[in-house]
Formats: sequence, structure tokens, C-alpha cells
Amino acid sequence: MASYLITGASRGIGLAIVHILASKPSSEMSVVFAAARTESDELKQLIATAENRVRWVQLDIIDKESIERATAQVTEALDGKGLDVLINNAGIMPWTVGGIEAMNDLDSTFHINVTGVHLVTQSLLPLLKTGTLKKVVNVSTTVGSIGMAATYQLFTVPAYKIAKAALNMLTVQYAQSLIDQGFTFIAVSPGWVKTDLGGEGADLTAEQSANAVLDIIFHKSAADTGKFFNIRVAGWEDAEGLNRYDGAQVPW
Amino acid sequence: MASYLITGASRGIGLAIVHILASKPSSEMSVVFAAARTESDELKQLIATAENRVRWVQLDIIDKESIERATAQVTEALDGKGLDVLINNAGIMPWTVGGIEAMNDLDSTFHINVTGVHLVTQSLLPLLKTGTLKKVVNVSTTVGSIGMAATYQLFTVPAYKIAKAALNMLTVQYAQSLIDQGFTFIAVSPGWVKTDLGGEGADLTAEQSANAVLDIIFHKSAADTGKFFNIRVAGWEDAEGLNRYDGAQVPW
Repeated sequence: MASYLITGASRGIGLAIVHILASKPSSEMSVVFAAARTESDELKQLIATAENRVRWVQLDIIDKESIERATAQVTEALDGKGLDVLINNAGIMPWTVGGIEAMNDLDSTFHINVTGVHLVTQSLLPLLKTGTLKKVVNVSTTVGSIGMAATYQLFTVPAYKIAKAALNMLTVQYAQSLIDQGFTFIAVSPGWVKTDLGGEGADLTAEQSANAVLDIIFHKSAADTGKFFNIRVAGWEDAEGLNRYDGAQVPW
Repeated sequence: MASYLITGASRGIGLAIVHILASKPSSEMSVVFAAARTESDELKQLIATAENRVRWVQLDIIDKESIERATAQVTEALDGKGLDVLINNAGIMPWTVGGIEAMNDLDSTFHINVTGVHLVTQSLLPLLKTGTLKKVVNVSTTVGSIGMAATYQLFTVPAYKIAKAALNMLTVQYAQSLIDQGFTFIAVSPGWVKTDLGGEGADLTAEQSANAVLDIIFHKSAADTGKFFNIRVAGWEDAEGLNRYDGAQVPW
């Protein structure tokens, strides 16, 4: 019976998560608000066959008016009920040609990947407070782990790395602030996934990643608030370095 | 004979560092560029008595034109020599009334505390590459350690915490990028200091903190690049939690 809102739902991992949630029985899932800047054809098709259990929400996570409109729409649709789970999945990963010495996209990357998550969370928090599950999942990445930085040394996405480290601290700040209200705020690394962002050479399909992210969402609870988890994928638990998906906590 | 540039030099820890450097013999220190937005009376007095070994540099770290002017001034003053040590000390710590749910200063805090450090470093990097020491010290804080977040739970400066976590990742990114060129990029926590920022109830005087920060700058080398150090202060090595100044590495 849980309600979900996921950002970045028009493609990639976000769309795959909506697909999986839409296949759950109504005893487990009542409605998914699939939020994105633009509605992809794939999302339109999914919504058309989902019997009103998947709803389109136009949302630009760095546009406060857009966030207010989306919040009003979700509030009305829930008709007095709360929102149970928020998945902050939208984000960007810009490549920086020339490495950090040439980096000129730090503010914009931070604004989308961190401030965007904050603005959406802030706006939906009253609805989440009246929800039954009170779960907020921020899609982070092991690439944003400062402790694992050596693993990703040759991966020239410095602004993305810096913003995701900041997102992890944002997650911990929310967890601390709302710990007495039964919330579960966690950061999750979805792995290296064959999406527009991850490329064709990646480890996992979007469906594999989405299932693993949802495993974490279903099974973690308030005792885990403020933690940062890697996904667990069968067959990848013992791999080395960046290809290891063992479900363990990720170092900060 | 080393040359230094320090931002945020008009007061607090920055001014105290300039004071100490100015007292060093010319065999150890040739010139300190004391950079800040405005020149304080204390800094003016210090410069007046420092026999041209302390130079005033007007610098707003988030204003690219100001950074360009400052870089040109320092380049001309060094007359073909490189800059040896850059201390990125300028920063802000805004209190957020109402905690993270009310936070509305995330972008501006990030822009000053992280992007400002990046812009200054980026601009001075050519001069640092021709320097002999190649040291860049970013003044961070244990308050920005995600691993130590529980220690600072009641300290409601979420934007500062998030920005400093990001600054730590920025430091690591620079360290990795320039590791083959003999650079030492480190993050340093200066402790809780009796300054405008730290307040009167703080642990240390600005002079104690400045001496401890300089100890780290003098003694760490390329083998330590990419690390995050706490200061060491006699009498405080065995204190608990946030009051511990033991010179150890700080968890990310």
C-alpha cells in the first residue's frame, strides 16, 4: 500500500525502478509518482498500462515553482494520505576535459546534484512526515566516496565526485535532524549501469540495478538512517574495487 | 626563502598565520602575500612594520576579475620566481536557524567555501608549478568530516558541513591530478578557535591554531598529499571528541 515518488523517472535506473514498482501487487504499492523534467515515450507507455498506479509528475528539481506545483499535485492525489517513500534519483555526471585544473562546472553540478535534492526533500517533507514509512533514499555513488577515491582516480568527473561527497553529508544531516521522527534517510550507490549516463560498457542492466536499489529501500529501516549502502547483486559480491556489489556500507 | 599566499588574511587564523610567518628569518620566509577582501587595521599595522616581507593583496575569492588581478600582482612581485605555498583559509560559517529543513544558503556557502578555493587554486597553479615547495593547504574542519558527524550533531551549520565535506573531496581531486608533479595538497582542521567565527568560548587562541596549522604545513610533504590532518596542540592530544587536537588524520 506504499506510495512512492521518484525523480529522474523518465529513463535509466529511475524508469527501471518505476517499472518494477508498477509490477508489485497493490498490497505492496499503491501509487508511484514518476517525476522528471520531460515525459519519455517509455514512461508514457508504462503509465498507459499501469491503471492509474503510475502518475506523471512534471518536475524540474532546481526550479522552485516547478517543485511547488509538483508538491501540490502529489498532495491532491494522495487525498489526505502521506507520501511513504521519496527516491531522489535525478542527477547529472559531466565529464571534465582536462581534469580538475580545467573544471568550470562545479557550481552547476552541485546545484543539480545536491541543492536539487535538498529543495525536493524540503518541499515534500510535510507529506513524508504524515506517511507511514518515512523513507528518503538519495541515489549517490561509490564514485563520491572520498575513502574510495584511489579506485576512481582515472575517472575524470571531478565536479560529480565533489557533489556526491556533499550529497552524502546532506543525507547525514537530514538523518540526524529527523532521527526522532522515525525517518530513514540513506544514500545508495546504484552501481555502474548501462544507461545514458553509465554507457554500454557498464557492469549491470538498469533492471539489475533498480532491483538492487529497491532491495535496499524495502529492507533498510530507521536503525540504518544516515548510512551509505552499496547495492548487492548476485555474482558480483566478491569482485574487486569498483565492480564489487556486496550490499556493504560504503566508506565516506 | 619560501613565498606564501594566504586568503582570509585580514583577521582570525589567517592574520595569526601572517604574523607568525612575518617573524620567521628570511632564510625560511621571503614574502607573504596577505590576501583578503578588505585590509583590516591589524593587517595594515603588520604590513607597515614588516619591511616589505608582507604584501597586501586585495582578493575576493569568488570574483574572477579580482582573482586575475591578484594573480597578476603576485606574478609581478615574484619577478620570475614561483609561489611556494598557497593557504586557502578564507571561508564562511553561516548558522541555519531551524536546521536543515530551513536551510536556504547551501549554494552560496558552497560557492564561497569550495568554488572560491577552486578558482583561487586554479588561477595560482601556474605560479605554484614553478615554485619549489608546491604546497597547497585547504583549511577544512573536523565539522566537515562525515565520519565524525555524530560528534557535531547539535551544531546547526548544515551548509558549512556539506561544503567542507565537498572541500575535502576537492582537495583529494587536486592531489590525485597533480601527484606526478611533486605537489602536496592537504586539508587541515584548525580546531575550534577564539575568532569572530569560533566565538569567545572556543578552545584555542588564534595564535595556538596558527602555529599548529603551520607545523603541518612545514612538516608534511608529497608523501602526505590527499590527506586530511587535525592540528596537534600540546595539552589537547588526549581530549575527547571535538576538543581532541592530536595531529592525526581525520576520517572523511
